[in-house]
Amino acid sequence: MSFIKKPGFQFFIFFGIFALIAGIAHAEVSAETQYVFNTFLFLVCGFLVMFMAAGFAMLEAGSVRSKNAAAICIKNISLYSTAGLLYWLVGYNLMYGVDEGGFVGGLSVWTADDLAVGAETPDYSGGYASGSDWYFQMVFCATTASIVSGTIAERLKIWPFLIFTLVLTGFIYPIVGGWEWGGGFLDANFAFSDFAGSTLVHSTGGWAALAGAIVIGSRTGRFNEDGSVTSFPGSSIPLATLGAFILWLGWFGFNGGSQLALGSALDSVAISNIFINTNLAAAAGVMFAMITSQLLYGKVDIVVALNGAIGGLVAITAEPLAPSIGAAVFIGAVGGILVAVTTPLLLKMKIDDVVGAIPAHLVCGIWGTMIVPLTNGDASYFGQFVGVISVAIFAFVASFITWTVLKYTIGLRVTVEDELAGMDVTEFGLEAYPEFSKS
Amino acid sequence: MSFIKKPGFQFFIFFGIFALIAGIAHAEVSAETQYVFNTFLFLVCGFLVMFMAAGFAMLEAGSVRSKNAAAICIKNISLYSTAGLLYWLVGYNLMYGVDEGGFVGGLSVWTADDLAVGAETPDYSGGYASGSDWYFQMVFCATTASIVSGTIAERLKIWPFLIFTLVLTGFIYPIVGGWEWGGGFLDANFAFSDFAGSTLVHSTGGWAALAGAIVIGSRTGRFNEDGSVTSFPGSSIPLATLGAFILWLGWFGFNGGSQLALGSALDSVAISNIFINTNLAAAAGVMFAMITSQLLYGKVDIVVALNGAIGGLVAITAEPLAPSIGAAVFIGAVGGILVAVTTPLLLKMKIDDVVGAIPAHLVCGIWGTMIVPLTNGDASYFGQFVGVISVAIFAFVASFITWTVLKYTIGLRVTVEDELAGMDVTEFGLEAYPEFSKS
Amino acid sequence: MSFIKKPGFQFFIFFGIFALIAGIAHAEVSAETQYVFNTFLFLVCGFLVMFMAAGFAMLEAGSVRSKNAAAICIKNISLYSTAGLLYWLVGYNLMYGVDEGGFVGGLSVWTADDLAVGAETPDYSGGYASGSDWYFQMVFCATTASIVSGTIAERLKIWPFLIFTLVLTGFIYPIVGGWEWGGGFLDANFAFSDFAGSTLVHSTGGWAALAGAIVIGSRTGRFNEDGSVTSFPGSSIPLATLGAFILWLGWFGFNGGSQLALGSALDSVAISNIFINTNLAAAAGVMFAMITSQLLYGKVDIVVALNGAIGGLVAITAEPLAPSIGAAVFIGAVGGILVAVTTPLLLKMKIDDVVGAIPAHLVCGIWGTMIVPLTNGDASYFGQFVGVISVAIFAFVASFITWTVLKYTIGLRVTVEDELAGMDVTEFGLEAYPEFSKS
Repeated sequence: MSFIKKPGFQFFIFFGIFALIAGIAHAEVSAETQYVFNTFLFLVCGFLVMFMAAGFAMLEAGSVRSKNAAAICIKNISLYSTAGLLYWLVGYNLMYGVDEGGFVGGLSVWTADDLAVGAETPDYSGGYASGSDWYFQMVFCATTASIVSGTIAERLKIWPFLIFTLVLTGFIYPIVGGWEWGGGFLDANFAFSDFAGSTLVHSTGGWAALAGAIVIGSRTGRFNEDGSVTSFPGSSIPLATLGAFILWLGWFGFNGGSQLALGSALDSVAISNIFINTNLAAAAGVMFAMITSQLLYGKVDIVVALNGAIGGLVAITAEPLAPSIGAAVFIGAVGGILVAVTTPLLLKMKIDDVVGAIPAHLVCGIWGTMIVPLTNGDASYFGQFVGVISVAIFAFVASFITWTVLKYTIGLRVTVEDELAGMDVTEFGLEAYPEFSKS
Repeated sequence: MSFIKKPGFQFFIFFGIFALIAGIAHAEVSAETQYVFNTFLFLVCGFLVMFMAAGFAMLEAGSVRSKNAAAICIKNISLYSTAGLLYWLVGYNLMYGVDEGGFVGGLSVWTADDLAVGAETPDYSGGYASGSDWYFQMVFCATTASIVSGTIAERLKIWPFLIFTLVLTGFIYPIVGGWEWGGGFLDANFAFSDFAGSTLVHSTGGWAALAGAIVIGSRTGRFNEDGSVTSFPGSSIPLATLGAFILWLGWFGFNGGSQLALGSALDSVAISNIFINTNLAAAAGVMFAMITSQLLYGKVDIVVALNGAIGGLVAITAEPLAPSIGAAVFIGAVGGILVAVTTPLLLKMKIDDVVGAIPAHLVCGIWGTMIVPLTNGDASYFGQFVGVISVAIFAFVASFITWTVLKYTIGLRVTVEDELAGMDVTEFGLEAYPEFSKS
Repeated sequence: MSFIKKPGFQFFIFFGIFALIAGIAHAEVSAETQYVFNTFLFLVCGFLVMFMAAGFAMLEAGSVRSKNAAAICIKNISLYSTAGLLYWLVGYNLMYGVDEGGFVGGLSVWTADDLAVGAETPDYSGGYASGSDWYFQMVFCATTASIVSGTIAERLKIWPFLIFTLVLTGFIYPIVGGWEWGGGFLDANFAFSDFAGSTLVHSTGGWAALAGAIVIGSRTGRFNEDGSVTSFPGSSIPLATLGAFILWLGWFGFNGGSQLALGSALDSVAISNIFINTNLAAAAGVMFAMITSQLLYGKVDIVVALNGAIGGLVAITAEPLAPSIGAAVFIGAVGGILVAVTTPLLLKMKIDDVVGAIPAHLVCGIWGTMIVPLTNGDASYFGQFVGVISVAIFAFVASFITWTVLKYTIGLRVTVEDELAGMDVTEFGLEAYPEFSKS
C-alpha cells in the first residue's frame, strides 16, 4: 500500500487518529464535565458541613443548663458568621498562600482567581470553581470554632468569645492548616497525612478549647473543695441527640468532600468508600462507648454514647479512605472507648469541658492521626507525631496567649452573680425557655 | 496534491472534519449530560428549599408561647401540603402560562410536558426535566406561605388560615411570579430584576402577612391602653435558632438553584459565587444586627440576631450573583441593621408580628430589590421601583381583601377566652409540652 | 469510484465511521460520566435517608413522655449504629447473594467487589461504585429498625432492644429484601413489585413492631380494667413535627434514589417525577388525615396529621414512578385516611403503639403495595398479595419468636416501678429534661 506514504494520506492518517482519540476519549469524562462534578461536590459537601454548625448548636444547647441555652445559641450562630467573614478577609490566603515547605502565607482578602462570572471563554483547567473550594474550606474553618464554644460554655461573655473566634478563624486555624493543606512544612518535609483534618481541624479546635478551659476556669460550683464534682446535667437530651445526628450527617460532607474531586470513576469510588468508613467508624464509636460505660459504670452513659459517635468520626477523619472497613471499625471503636475513658479523667484534672469536646475532638483527633500509618503506607509514625506536636504547641500556645490577653484586658467571665443567675437573663435579657419552671 | 480534488477524498475530508468536531466538542459537556446536571440541580436545591418549611416551623414554634406551639406546627406542615397541591392544580400554569408582557396565565392543572416516563427516545432539548423545574418552583411557592404563618400566629384559626394559604399559593403568588418569572410585564417592559425572589417570594409573603396582621389584629394583651407593650417571649430559643440555621442551609438551594443550570463550567462558577455571597450576606446580617442592638439597647438581642441572618439572606436574594463579596457583605449588613431598626418601629405602629417576619422578609426584600442596580447594570432603579410597587399593591390589596372576606364569613380569630387559654388546648385538644409547668 | 474498493480506502472508511460514531455518541452521556452520576445519586439520596434516623429519633422523642425521652434517643442512635455494622457483617450478602428465585443468600462479610481504590485502570462497567450501593442499601436497613423503636417505647430495656435490632437488621430484613431486590422468589416467580419498599422496608418494620407490641405488652396504666384508655400525650409536639419534616425530606432520597440511576435524561426525568409524586402523596396524606379527624372527632388531630404525612409517604413508596400526579394524590390521600381510621382501632385491640408506627408503616405499606397494579401494568394484584402475605408471615413470625426468646431469657421489660419512674432515671441515671418540672 504505497499510497500511504504520500503526504496527503499521511495527513489523513494523522487526522483520523486525532479524531479517533478524541472520540474514544469521550468514553471517559470530559474536562468540563469533571469541572462541574468537582465543583458540585464541593458545594454539596460544603452545605453538609455548613449544617454541622446547627449540629454543634443543638448539641451544646442540649448540654448546657437551661439558663444558658439561649447564650450558647447566639454564640453558635455568631461564631459561624465570624468565621466566614474572617476566612474571607484573612484566613484563606493566609492558609493557601504559604510557600512550599513554609510556615505562613500573606495577608490579603480572598477573591476568586479563576473564571470571572460573565467571562465569554470558560477556562476550566483548574479542575473546579475556586469559589466552591473557598466555600468548602470556609465551613471547615467554622467547624474549628464550633468545637471551642461548647467546652467553655456557661461562663464566657459573648464579645470576648467572638474576638477569640476572630483570632482562631482568621489566624490560628489558617496558619496550622497552611502547614499541611497549603503545602507548608508538614506537607513538604514530613509527609504528614491528615486527610480531612483530625489534627488540623479537630485537634486545633480541641487545643483552643483546652486553653480556654484552663484560662477561664471551671463553672462556679462545679468542683467542690472536698474534691467532689457537682453534676450539671444538660437541659435537653433530645436536642443533644439531634445535634449528634446532624454532625454525623455533616461528616459525610466533611470527609467525602475532602477527596476534592468527583469527576472520575475512581474518585466516585473513593468517596463511596469514605462514606462507608465514616459511617461505620461512628457506629463503632457509639457501640463501644456504650459497652465501655456499661462495663465501667454498670449503665449506658447516654452523653458518652453521643460523644462516642463524634469520637469515632473524629478518629476516622485523618484517614477515611485507606482503611478497610474492618480497620475503620477498629479506629472508630477505639475512638468511642477513648471518649468513655478520658471524660472522667478530665474531671480529675478539674478541667470543666461542658460538652465533652476535648475527649471527642482532641483526644480522638490525636488517636486518628497517629494511627494513619497503619493503613496508609505513605505516612510515617514519626511524621504524624511531628504534625500532632507542632499543631499542639502552636494551637495551644497561641490560644492560651489570646485567652490570657483577653482575660486581662476586656475580661472573659461574667460575674459570679450573673453566672449563677444564668447568662440568658443577665447578658441577653431573655430566657431560652421562659415558661418552663426550673426544678 | 491534486488527489484532494477527487470526490472520494472530499468525502473523506468532510467526514474527518465532522468526526473531529464531534470529538473536540467532547471536551465540553454533552447535551444530555447538561440535562442531567440541570435536573439534578433543581432536585438537590429543591430539597434544600423544601427543608426550609421545617426551618420556618421551628423558628415559629420557638417564637410563640408554649400554649400555641402545637398549633403553629400543624399550620406549618399543612401550609406546605396545601401549597404543593394548589401549585399543581392551579398555580404553576397560572404563573408560567402568562403571555409575554402579560399579567396572568390561564387556569389548568400542571402536567409534565416533556419526555414521558417510558418514552423510547429521549428528548432533552428543553435543558432539564420539566418535573424538576415544577418541584423547584413549588417549594418557592410554599416558602411564600411559610412567611405568613409566623406573623399572625397565636390567634388565627386553622381552617381560615388554610383557605388563605390556598388563595395565596394558588393565585396571589403565581400571579405576581408570572409578571417576572413567567415573562409578564415586569420582565418584558421594565427589565425588573429579581434573581431568586426578594420581592416575588419574600415581599409577597411579607405583604400578605402585613395585611393579615392588620385585619386580624394583635394578640390579646399585647398592646396596652397606656401605650405600653407587653412582652410575649418565645417559648424556645434553641428551636428558633435551629429554625434559623435550617433556613440558612435551605437558602443555598433557594439562591443557588435559581441559577437554573449547572451543566457548564460557567454555571458551576456562578453557583459557587452565589453560595459565597449568600453565606456572607447572612453572616453580615447576623453581626450587624448584633452590633446594632448592642449599640441601641446596650445588649445583644438574640431574636433580632437570628432575624438578622434572615434579613441578610432576603436582602441578597434579589441579586446573589453580580455583587462582589464586599458588596454582598454590605447588602447583608444593611439587611441586619434594618431588622434591628424596624422591629421596634412595628411595635410603635401596633402591628403584632409574632416572629418578626415583616422586618426580615418585607423590609429587607424591598431593600435587596432596590439595591440590585448597584451591582447589576441590566437593572434600573426605576424598573426595580415599579416591580416593588406593583407587587406591593397587588399582594397587599389581594391579601387584605381575602383576609377581610374570611373575617366576615367564617371568621378568623379564636375567641378571647380560647386565645388566653391557648390554641393548642382549645382548638386541638392537646398541649405542645403537656408535662412542663408554665411559669 | 473504484478506488473505494482498494484495501487502504476500506481501512479509512472503517476508521472514519468508528470515529464518527464515537464522536456522535458524545452527544449522550459517556459510560464513566454515567457511573459518576449513578454513584453520586446513591450517596446524596443515601445521606438523605441516613438523616431519617434523626427524623425517627425526634418523632419518637416528641411522642414519648418526658421521663423516657432520653431512653428513646439512645435507642435511636444505637439502632442506627447496630444496623450499619450488621448489614456489613451479615445483611448485605444475605440479601443480595440469594440465587435467582431463591429464598436466602449466604453468610459473609460484605466487601467492595469492583474497582479497588488506587487501581490504575478504572472499570466502570458495573454502572456505579458498589460502595455507594452498599451505603444506600444500608440506610434502608436502618430505616426498618427505626420503625420498630417507636412502637415499643417506654417499657423495653436497651440491650434486648439492640439484640432484636441485630436480628432484624442482620437477618429478618435482609432475608425479606432478598426475596425481591436480591432476585429471589417474589421477584422471579410472582413479578412482585415494590419500587422503594412499602412492603420490604415499611411493612417489615411494622410487622416486627406489631409482634413486639404483642409480646411485650402495653405500657403500665394505658388500658384500664373498665375498658377505658388513659391518654399518654407526647412530651413535645414541636420535636415530633421536626421529625415528620425530616422524614419527609429523607423520603426524597428514599424513593428518588430507588431509581438506582441518574446518568441519563430518562433517569433524571423519572427521579423528578418520583420527587413530585412523593411530595404530593405526603401532602394529600396530611390534608386527608386532617379532614378525616375533623369530620370524625370534630377537631384536627395533630398527631394523626403528622402520621398522615408518613402514611402518604409509605403508601406511595411501593410505586412512586408510574402513577400520574392525580393517582399519587389519591394513593397518599387514602394513606392519610387509613392512618386516621386505624389509629383508634389499634386501641380497641389493646395494642399500645406509642408513635402510631403500625397505622403509618404497616397499614399504609400494605395499601401502597396492593394498589400498585392500578398504575403499573407489570404488577398483578395476585403477585402483590403473595408478596404482602409472604412478608407478613415471615417477618411477623420471625419477630415474634425473637421477641419471645428474649422475653424468657434476658427479659424485655423494665420493672413496673422503674417504668412508672421513667426509664431515663432508672435505666440511664439521667433525665431528658432535668430542669423542667413535670405537671
